[in-house]
Amino acid sequence: MDLTHLDEQNKPKMVDIGDKAHTTRKATASGIIETSQDAFNAVMNNTAKKGPVLQTAVIAAIQAAKQTSTLIPMCHPLMLNSINTDIKELPDLPGFKLEVTVKLNDQTGVEMEALTGVSIGLLTIYDMLKAIDKAMVIKHIQLEHKSGGNSGDFNR
Amino acid sequence: MDLTHLDEQNKPKMVDIGDKAHTTRKATASGIIETSQDAFNAVMNNTAKKGPVLQTAVIAAIQAAKQTSTLIPMCHPLMLNSINTDIKELPDLPGFKLEVTVKLNDQTGVEMEALTGVSIGLLTIYDMLKAIDKAMVIKHIQLEHKSGGNSGDFNR
Amino acid sequence: MDLTHLDEQNKPKMVDIGDKAHTTRKATASGIIETSQDAFNAVMNNTAKKGPVLQTAVIAAIQAAKQTSTLIPMCHPLMLNSINTDIKELPDLPGFKLEVTVKLNDQTGVEMEALTGVSIGLLTIYDMLKAIDKAMVIKHIQLEHKSGGNSGDFNR
Amino acid sequence: MDLTHLDEQNKPKMVDIGDKAHTTRKATASGIIETSQDAFNAVMNNTAKKGPVLQTAVIAAIQAAKQTSTLIPMCHPLMLNSINTDIKELPDLPGFKLEVTVKLNDQTGVEMEALTGVSIGLLTIYDMLKAIDKAMVIKHIQLEHKSGGNSGDFNR
Amino acid sequence: MDLTHLDEQNKPKMVDIGDKAHTTRKATASGIIETSQDAFNAVMNNTAKKGPVLQTAVIAAIQAAKQTSTLIPMCHPLMLNSINTDIKELPDLPGFKLEVTVKLNDQTGVEMEALTGVSIGLLTIYDMLKAIDKAMVIKHIQLEHKSGGNSGDFNR
Amino acid sequence: MDLTHLDEQNKPKMVDIGDKAHTTRKATASGIIETSQDAFNAVMNNTAKKGPVLQTAVIAAIQAAKQTSTLIPMCHPLMLNSINTDIKELPDLPGFKLEVTVKLNDQTGVEMEALTGVSIGLLTIYDMLKAIDKAMVIKHIQLEHKSGGNSGDFNR
Repeated sequence: MDLTHLDEQNKPKMVDIGDKAHTTRKATASGIIETSQDAFNAVMNNTAKKGPVLQTAVIAAIQAAKQTSTLIPMCHPLMLNSINTDIKELPDLPGFKLEVTVKLNDQTGVEMEALTGVSIGLLTIYDMLKAIDKAMVIKHIQLEHKSGGNSGDFNR
Repeated sequence: MDLTHLDEQNKPKMVDIGDKAHTTRKATASGIIETSQDAFNAVMNNTAKKGPVLQTAVIAAIQAAKQTSTLIPMCHPLMLNSINTDIKELPDLPGFKLEVTVKLNDQTGVEMEALTGVSIGLLTIYDMLKAIDKAMVIKHIQLEHKSGGNSGDFNR
Repeated sequence: MDLTHLDEQNKPKMVDIGDKAHTTRKATASGIIETSQDAFNAVMNNTAKKGPVLQTAVIAAIQAAKQTSTLIPMCHPLMLNSINTDIKELPDLPGFKLEVTVKLNDQTGVEMEALTGVSIGLLTIYDMLKAIDKAMVIKHIQLEHKSGGNSGDFNR
Repeated sequence: MDLTHLDEQNKPKMVDIGDKAHTTRKATASGIIETSQDAFNAVMNNTAKKGPVLQTAVIAAIQAAKQTSTLIPMCHPLMLNSINTDIKELPDLPGFKLEVTVKLNDQTGVEMEALTGVSIGLLTIYDMLKAIDKAMVIKHIQLEHKSGGNSGDFNR
Repeated sequence: MDLTHLDEQNKPKMVDIGDKAHTTRKATASGIIETSQDAFNAVMNNTAKKGPVLQTAVIAAIQAAKQTSTLIPMCHPLMLNSINTDIKELPDLPGFKLEVTVKLNDQTGVEMEALTGVSIGLLTIYDMLKAIDKAMVIKHIQLEHKSGGNSGDFNR
Repeated sequence: MDLTHLDEQNKPKMVDIGDKAHTTRKATASGIIETSQDAFNAVMNNTAKKGPVLQTAVIAAIQAAKQTSTLIPMCHPLMLNSINTDIKELPDLPGFKLEVTVKLNDQTGVEMEALTGVSIGLLTIYDMLKAIDKAMVIKHIQLEHKSGGNSGDFNR
């Protein structure tokens, strides 16, 4: 099993994507934040109806996805075509599920962009609610789907 | 239950910390990445002995902790005093646990900095190993300890 | 009249604030975006009631205020204590007025932070509405109030 | 009238440009800073003849135009082909007019890049002159021309 | 001899690359840090065998190369295809030589990216060793090879 | 000889400065770019008399010094009090010498900030002149003076 991001001297490298195909690539990642009932209620009962907390999380997720190559050291800078989000309320957990979908027409995949968007989006929810509950847990950050590129499709 | 990060118009705000005490604040956060056996072995069997993959993750975690206020919209810019990391191999999972501890002597806490460091550090491990295993899951990103400040100490 | 930001060789410099007083400094800046009636209505009639467009603008304003020292070349990096915003609907113009207030307890003022927040916030409204109206004009970006520091208070 | 940057849940999104044409796109934006006579004179009488103040503004404008996608939340990262500036002295106002022209060969327009360059360039002039005059006003930030792309040309 | 980065008003500009050929461009730059014997030994005798110090330098070099357009004012944002590094121990100097190679398939060269990577990588070695030796000197930062583009190949 | 930036597991860390003294710290670094006669003349004969090329370099140096903690992985974020530059023409080399002086009143030194400013400033001169001369060499980037802090003063 090969560590593609290491060179023959065992140093990290940014791998060469120059010979890979220009194709449409798409990745969806998701993650969950488990909150206390109080924290969940504060979001749901807000007069603006989930507006500010979840809107802030979505914006943070989108901005972070665009910053992936500055955050993850071996990621390539990419000109993302689109970033979409989906937030599901999970009243039984309670908590929230954030899904981020990224599209690109270029020579490498966008899994890391989708995963980074999810991570920072969930951290933003934590930040907005941490005065109520510091014990919240972020869990199940994972790739859901991926298409395009020569490593084939992935569906969890 | 109050959403401290929203103003009376339900807009996000960066809360005023100007009257809070200058005290030593410390926060430790942790998280886990669950890998396949192949991915775990690739890290452990590397001739440089975990060097490049986990070193890259640690550096990414430290750099991300310093970028917290640009990533999490309502976080204050802070002059962190120290950032330390700990990585534990979890051969039974298999996977890795990353812990990040941040210290500051100032007017607000550093929970978000520790959590952001953990999140980006684990995403970096995912990135370095994703050619072997795309199904890895990041889980249990959580605050472990927090001390200093008027909201009191927190121990999970 | 002295150009404080130039040295004796006429090169820009970041001026020395090391001997200035540590005091509470506060600045409020404002600006207006004049829109078409259609663009204004699109914001006001949105089912989420101004939510997404103006919320995005507020978040962009706050994040930009924190980035001032990377955008304005001779500005000092500062640890802002708080950032608050106010948005007024101007149905007669029509358009919107954005006000940003920044506080700091340190050795230099925060006028540029407030003005940068206003500018980027208004540009964000432009961006969110430009599919409807490209002729919108941003006007009257100005300092409203400033207090603290040895240059005295300013009130427009 | 459609808010293109919102999804069906009224959350912001980065719109999909993947199906848009790769064409040459060009945008010119402009804006004015109105100064006091003293501040205007300080720039004009400088021994280096407008050098340092306006040169700093131009450089800040160019660097900001490149940072547009990190500042304006729903903007796409873009590989700008060129950025040019023009500064006109307005002795009768008095003040300065800054114009920024951006070119790109890609799938979306560069209006926001030109407008962001203008805004940050004018704020830099404010910063360089604010020890002389804090009452300066930035006004008339607007799109002048735009060509390329399927929304057609725009000329004010 | 023409200063291509200045316009007819002697202001800096980001030159237009829109008509240049899309070709594979490659640049290698190198530089040396001369250390004391003590500092050199600290790296070589480290139980992790050069691991942490030089690994950190390599990662910093790669991340800096990706940030070139934000650091060097007139550089274009570019989507680099690959970044590789090489570190040579120079026991006789003593010191270390860092080489960075950048590849791109686009309309402008990547000399600045390679040179920026080298500079920040060497500064990182300085930072990691400065508690032992503050007199270290960074020298001979230079372009080694360049290919692709209409200015022809360069070989030192 | 101790590698202060490594922890007991040989991982990089951001060292704890929380117990160090708050004192005035100052550092001056310098470096040289050796150019061809043609490149040197292009700067000196420019109608704006060294204006645009060297002004751009100075601004880039100041902005880079402020970005040090994002570029050098183990550096602390710092609120620099002042940044000054000095450029000397070296007609006999030919070339230019850039000196950057940084001041801070805080708990750690600013050597890296001064050195980073010098490096990026010189790279900017390279960038502005590289159409004339690609063989330029950056040399002798070094700390000149340092005062403040418990490691004592340094004078080359």
